[in-house]
Amino acid sequence: MLELADSLPAVAIGHQIVLDLYDCARERLDSVDVVRTALVQTARAVGVTIVEEVFHKFSPWGVSGVVVIAESHLAIHTWPERRYAAVDIFTCGSSVDLHRATRYLQRVFEAERVVKKEFRRGSEVA
Amino acid sequence: MLELADSLPAVAIGHQIVLDLYDCARERLDSVDVVRTALVQTARAVGVTIVEEVFHKFSPWGVSGVVVIAESHLAIHTWPERRYAAVDIFTCGSSVDLHRATRYLQRVFEAERVVKKEFRRGSEVA
Repeated sequence: MLELADSLPAVAIGHQIVLDLYDCARERLDSVDVVRTALVQTARAVGVTIVEEVFHKFSPWGVSGVVVIAESHLAIHTWPERRYAAVDIFTCGSSVDLHRATRYLQRVFEAERVVKKEFRRGSEVA
Repeated sequence: MLELADSLPAVAIGHQIVLDLYDCARERLDSVDVVRTALVQTARAVGVTIVEEVFHKFSPWGVSGVVVIAESHLAIHTWPERRYAAVDIFTCGSSVDLHRATRYLQRVFEAERVVKKEFRRGSEVA
């Protein structure tokens, strides 16, 4: 039995950014190497600790990838034929600069538009 | 529970549900076997195609796991000491029953409260 919760403060556990990257460079979105490097570099740039990573190239188009970090995860799914990528960055570290990550990913994929949603996770923990 | 989908645009590439599971059974959240089975069974129950999976047990507490599916991903992070789990289900298949997945996960982890956010991804693709 784990006995810890009673003494912990009622604050948010995680912080999540959901990015929709539009009008990207198609060939970048379809390269598993580019996508993998982008996500791993994002993790490194924001100073999180990588635990595991998995990437998959779909046929005929598209890449999915997830980097599990000690602070939660980064995930990406690309649709080169739509010039679109969906990115999720979920962390539980307070020092992570998610805006820097956003700018980096926008640059790598040459996204002309980025729509960002940002919210806290676990904010109702007792 | 928060229900947002009805007001969202009809055309989108993906569909995402973000679940905060509160007041769960601690031991279940801390078992990598229970967490892995729950996420894989969720994927199977909603009929998606599993491509890769990765699970990690943290010390002293907590489990992170991601199942990459042909339709995008499922991810879970647990904080047994807070009796809290964060789940993301991101699909691009229109036939996926995400509400069924929510009910299943709530039951497995014996969550007393679930806060759900739901939104579409890539709805501005040209």
